Amino acid sequence: MKYLEMSKAELETELAREKAIYDSFLARKLKLNMARGKPDEDQLDISVNMYSGVPSPISEDGTDCRNYGLLDGITEAKKLFADILEAPAENVIVCGNSSLNLMFDTVARSMIFGSYKGATPWMKQERIKFLCPVPGYDRHFAITETFGIEMINIPMTPEGPDMDLVERYVESDPAVKGIWCVPKYSNPDGYTYSDETVRRFARLRPAADDFRIFWDNAYVVHDLYDDADKLLSIYDEAKAVGNENIFIMFASTSKITFPGSGISAIVSGKENIDFIKSIMTVQTIGYDKMNMLRHVNFLRNIDGVRAHMKRHADILRPKFETVLTAFENELSDLPNTSWTNPKGGYFITLYLDSFCASRTFELCKSAGVTLTNAGATFPYGKDPEDRVLRIAPTFPPVDELKLAVSVLVCSAKIATIEKLLK
Amino acid sequence: MKYLEMSKAELETELAREKAIYDSFLARKLKLNMARGKPDEDQLDISVNMYSGVPSPISEDGTDCRNYGLLDGITEAKKLFADILEAPAENVIVCGNSSLNLMFDTVARSMIFGSYKGATPWMKQERIKFLCPVPGYDRHFAITETFGIEMINIPMTPEGPDMDLVERYVESDPAVKGIWCVPKYSNPDGYTYSDETVRRFARLRPAADDFRIFWDNAYVVHDLYDDADKLLSIYDEAKAVGNENIFIMFASTSKITFPGSGISAIVSGKENIDFIKSIMTVQTIGYDKMNMLRHVNFLRNIDGVRAHMKRHADILRPKFETVLTAFENELSDLPNTSWTNPKGGYFITLYLDSFCASRTFELCKSAGVTLTNAGATFPYGKDPEDRVLRIAPTFPPVDELKLAVSVLVCSAKIATIEKLLK
Repeated sequence: MKYLEMSKAELETELAREKAIYDSFLARKLKLNMARGKPDEDQLDISVNMYSGVPSPISEDGTDCRNYGLLDGITEAKKLFADILEAPAENVIVCGNSSLNLMFDTVARSMIFGSYKGATPWMKQERIKFLCPVPGYDRHFAITETFGIEMINIPMTPEGPDMDLVERYVESDPAVKGIWCVPKYSNPDGYTYSDETVRRFARLRPAADDFRIFWDNAYVVHDLYDDADKLLSIYDEAKAVGNENIFIMFASTSKITFPGSGISAIVSGKENIDFIKSIMTVQTIGYDKMNMLRHVNFLRNIDGVRAHMKRHADILRPKFETVLTAFENELSDLPNTSWTNPKGGYFITLYLDSFCASRTFELCKSAGVTLTNAGATFPYGKDPEDRVLRIAPTFPPVDELKLAVSVLVCSAKIATIEKLLK
Repeated sequence: MKYLEMSKAELETELAREKAIYDSFLARKLKLNMARGKPDEDQLDISVNMYSGVPSPISEDGTDCRNYGLLDGITEAKKLFADILEAPAENVIVCGNSSLNLMFDTVARSMIFGSYKGATPWMKQERIKFLCPVPGYDRHFAITETFGIEMINIPMTPEGPDMDLVERYVESDPAVKGIWCVPKYSNPDGYTYSDETVRRFARLRPAADDFRIFWDNAYVVHDLYDDADKLLSIYDEAKAVGNENIFIMFASTSKITFPGSGISAIVSGKENIDFIKSIMTVQTIGYDKMNMLRHVNFLRNIDGVRAHMKRHADILRPKFETVLTAFENELSDLPNTSWTNPKGGYFITLYLDSFCASRTFELCKSAGVTLTNAGATFPYGKDPEDRVLRIAPTFPPVDELKLAVSVLVCSAKIATIEKLLK
């Protein structure tokens, strides 16, 4: 029975029932974690062959990868990322173990040197603003907050960020210098930007000539089903309208091979790539080429990557389905409550009734279930309606996950009924 | 016969003789490189066992190194660097493949956020100056130049930088925010700072509270002889006088295992370490822990490192001696000409008569021998006396090195006689 159709007495009975269940969870002194988008152990195991055998250290172009040299990465790694990210290899720089680090560095570089050769450094400008599609990735917002950049919320939709609003801000306000995008299987909704959204991004004519789209393609090949979402190539779309320097794309193999021991890449237009390299050549002699070789030897090419990602999907699908089934079975009667049903990526988003997310988070926490902080998916950690919870189903084994989700749905029910009874 | 004792006619004869030799080199169309401090292939081969076998991915404290986590590195890698760098493990952060990157990031962080919590960012201050012991490391100077930091030359001595001058600048000018130091087997002289020099550094009381010593301990275990230079621990010395945050030390395994595929570390006082981590935690989730494990498994401990470094020394000693013998035999008659005789590190410095370095460099270049650019060891690439050439004997095989040095000494003689005849 829908909660909204229940009498006060019925709600009180339901609350008592859920509280009894909650108390039984409390008694079990659980310690479960659904907070971060981490691969599980089985996922890590499917890449261990990457470490077997000593690869020949000589790259395609004859470079001894054990020694200094090659600022922008070995040819074969550039080609691999070019195929994954749908852009020419000469527009790729292959870097170290963290694409987050590349995003941080890109903001830092713009703060100090400006975002193109000859541009005014952001630190020498009065005000710098970033558009932040919400809910979004907490670590993106942490970067902009740390640099003192003002963040403006942009509502997400199943098609991507509200593009009317994006265009209005970007094309009218020269203080707007960037936007954080996770265009495929967005963090945390799992939405993939529609063709129209990508095209509108590619066609942006910003008021500020030092505006850039931060295109974090973290889940580009991270499909759960054969019937995967399709994302247009921002490179192709931007190139077609002579706007190829509007975006900087970031990606890594963190959730393809090993988080923290993978390789990462930047893709952008030639002018951006040249500018980035001109600073990078002072910053480092080069990134870990042996790790690049290892990755190319193991993954081989885009087909190899796709086959490998199917093994991840086989492990992850039951986990996503565990959460979704529980939500379906347990949360359908709750008012103003919904959840996303992503075909890939690492997260599901649970939208509760307003002002119920924090309370649900706290109830889970007290029962030993760690979720991503309520509010974390918003700039400054502030979810104005207190509705959003990011669910990360990948790390716990299925049985633990089932238990954690039972605690979660129970907590969500309690929070919702408490609110209705107020 | 000393050149200064020769008549004009004798000099002309000598010049003709050297030019004939030079022409014979020209005819051979050589292509030799003594420009950069790169290990040779034999050196790379002694570390390949690091890649054999798949290490257990679980670190001492139970972390699965294949997954996210541990911002500041695994315990055993911290301990290893703590032993190498003579500081407590809790004062160590273990990072990625490049200590140069850490130095760049440290300057960038100070530009944007200041050099301690609450400090005024360098970019918000009028003028920023760095002291640059000369000759020094070109890549250090490239960093400060790129950031628009004013560089002040400080003469090097066999004891280290001229400390009277260092103290005068640091303790009187609040615009002086840093000094580049390579305290052991300095680049390019191969000098090791004396105990007194280290103690005076440790006791610096800067006019600017955001001044830091950039202590690039690149060659800390890179001895060529058993009778190695000894460097005092800056950590111990600074700690003893309550000044442990005066320095930030950098090091890596680039020239222990593999350049570009090693691990690096920062060591400093607790306040600096905490501040660095507070920004680093936004910059990255963590560095490559599998590579840390690999290094610890291979090198084991400080004794393992020392044994390993002896194998490097066995390869490098004959190369250094080839150069030094040639200089001894061929350059002793040249006026105002000397060279350093380092017991470790990667370089020898050749001091020619004034205004002879560029000409020697050019002659070498025309004969197919690439040296580090004349002037490169000075800020802005300007050697005021045009005397210094940095010799990097490590990369070419001994027979190629012999040939390259023959070209070099011949070129040096020609340049010197030409000058005398002017």
